Parts: sequence; C-alpha cells; structure tokens
Amino acid sequence: MNLNTSEILGLEDRYRRNLINSLLGPKSVVLVGSVSVNGIYNLAPFSQVFHVGANPPLAGLLFRPDSVPRHTLTNIRNTGFFTIQSIAEAWFAEAHQCSARYPKEVSEFEAMQLEPETFDGFAAPFVKNAKVKIGLSLKEEINIAINKTILVVGMIEKLIVPDDAVEEDGFLNPMETGAIAAAGLDSYYSLNHLARLKYAKPHLL
Amino acid sequence: MNLNTSEILGLEDRYRRNLINSLLGPKSVVLVGSVSVNGIYNLAPFSQVFHVGANPPLAGLLFRPDSVPRHTLTNIRNTGFFTIQSIAEAWFAEAHQCSARYPKEVSEFEAMQLEPETFDGFAAPFVKNAKVKIGLSLKEEINIAINKTILVVGMIEKLIVPDDAVEEDGFLNPMETGAIAAAGLDSYYSLNHLARLKYAKPHLL
Repeated sequence: MNLNTSEILGLEDRYRRNLINSLLGPKSVVLVGSVSVNGIYNLAPFSQVFHVGANPPLAGLLFRPDSVPRHTLTNIRNTGFFTIQSIAEAWFAEAHQCSARYPKEVSEFEAMQLEPETFDGFAAPFVKNAKVKIGLSLKEEINIAINKTILVVGMIEKLIVPDDAVEEDGFLNPMETGAIAAAGLDSYYSLNHLARLKYAKPHLL
Repeated sequence: MNLNTSEILGLEDRYRRNLINSLLGPKSVVLVGSVSVNGIYNLAPFSQVFHVGANPPLAGLLFRPDSVPRHTLTNIRNTGFFTIQSIAEAWFAEAHQCSARYPKEVSEFEAMQLEPETFDGFAAPFVKNAKVKIGLSLKEEINIAINKTILVVGMIEKLIVPDDAVEEDGFLNPMETGAIAAAGLDSYYSLNHLARLKYAKPHLL
C-alpha cells in the first residue's frame, strides 16, 4: 500500500482511524486516574502518553480536541492532579473498558470493580492493584494548532514501583512489572525481552 | 520504592535518567531519517514518538533541549521533511547504534550499512529494508517551557506499508510488520499478541 496525503484523506473514516493509529507499531498504554470537583473518581486508558524529561521528572499526555466532554481533562484542569498507572495482562480488558463513555456521575473504578487507593495530600486516585503508580501535578497545557489536540505536561510528585523490578542502574524492568503494550485503538500485547544494549558510541557496534 | 519529587531529584543522574525513562513501560521505537543541506543522510532512533491525529494524518516527535547539536532537528528545520520507519528484530542493534554521536559529515546509513531509499519530490531518505515507511512534512514546532523540549508535529505525506499486514478494517498488524518495542533508553522487546478488543460501550464488558 503506497498512499499520499490526499489518498489517506479519501479513506473511509473508520479505516483511516485504524490505519493511522496503528502506524507507529507497539506503544505504551496506561490508565489515567483523576477526580471530579464532585469527588467522582475517573479512570481512562491512554496510549498517547510519553516521557518528557527526567530532571525534573515529567510525562506528557495528548488529548483529542476539546469538542466532546473529556472527563479526564476537565478533572485535571479543575484539580491540578492526575495519576498514571501500568496495566497488567490480568486486567487489560477492564482497562480497555474504561474507555466507554460512562456518564460523568459513574466512576469507572466502581463499574470495573477496580479498587482505588488514595494518599494524604494527593487528590487523584490510583488503581490499588497497579504495579507502577505515578502521581503528577499539572504543569503545562499546550494547544497543538493544526488539529486542536491538547498536550498536558505533568510533573511526577509521587512514584511507587516494586523494589524488585528496579535494576541496579535504575531501569524499571517491564518484564518484572508485567506492563503490556498496545497498538492502534484496541490491540494489546505482552513482551519478550530481546536485549539491553550498551550506550552507543561511534566506534562500537 | 516510594519517592516524591525531591527524592527523585536527589537520585544519582544516570539512575534517575534510567528510572524515569522506563516508568511508562514498553513504548514505540522508530528510526527517523532526514537529510542535511549538504546532502548527508541522517538516521536516529526515537522512542518519544506518538500519534497526533488521523484526519489530517499527523505524528509527533519530542526532542531534548536545543543545547547540543541535534542533527535530526536541524535537518527537519532546514528541509521541512523527515521520515519515520519501523525497526525489525533482525536489525535493532544497528538501529540503536544510530544514536551514537557521529560527526555531522558521517551518514548513519553508511556507518550501519543500511540502504537508503528516496522518492522523487521527497527530500528525506527512508530505510529501504523497513516494512513501514512514513514520509512527513514539518507542520508545527512547539516549545515545552518547563524543560525546553521541542515537539515537532509532521503531516504524513507518504505512507508505504505491506498490503498483507493491513487488516480489513485498516489496522496495521505489528505481528505482521515485525515491529518491536523499547523500554527506557536501551531495552528492546518483541511482542506476543493478547487480543483485539471491541469498541468499549458502557453496558458491555
């Protein structure tokens, strides 16, 4: 298949959405937790999530345009806090189901029977069972002009990971946390480790 | 391990970089191709790459601060074009090695013995062997104030994927393209498919 922009734009909507969403191959998938001003705990799966920096520790989340209700984005704006957690193979179907358009008075934690966990001084809820729990504060909200998507950058305020999954040099081993990957809008994968490679220098291969 | 921001900031630099870079679990990894004004073909691995939108078709790349030479970013700014390609299990070590700081007059294509492929009317080079080839034009460059990283948003101008890897609904199957995932700065993974799940609705699980 060899397509240019106008041929891509001419594809049927659902076909184009599936194709373009899956082009970059396997990607991160996490659950984002937030709380409404009325105290309803929200949980939503995200695969447009990425590392922004280590010093200070930052992560980014990309939101689709603000034209339909986005409970997670509204909650982050109103409270200033959100959580990111890894998804395990044992409950990825429940995590995916959190993408359903539940009314805003319904908590996905209750609908999915996922137990929330909260900590003093941090408003947003975590998934108790998650192996990797990251609590963030909203630092920057950036509009991408070309398609009105919204990039939220958060600073890591709280980080809970299993000791035995952290290697000597700080690397958090996803084979130990059981984190999974996604592709496109609906496909999920577990991992086989290939290798960790040395820091690349011009004279080595 | 349970850390707050100041405890994270207090970690040894390399340990913190490994830890924070690996928090989000498995992630995309691609090779980005570009060409300098002097005609040198450049190739660099990126794992901060993400879907930005399907209509129009857009992808984003995050660059670290502009304080050291960034051949890829300079080339994209000067020529307006870049390529993104999937990395296969057979040559992920070569792809990783492209992250070495070669002088700007050295082409990673030559250093790695990866064959370039070019098309009329599109300046940036592709990796001939890659199964998924995406050619993009620079549409937007956005500065993230908090840590001076730079988000480049490109529009997909050219898309080449194997017909037999595209499913009926447009989904590009990564088990067919052989695309791999990365974690942290140096760890690579192949995939096991778990499932494709239905579009989530509130009354279904």
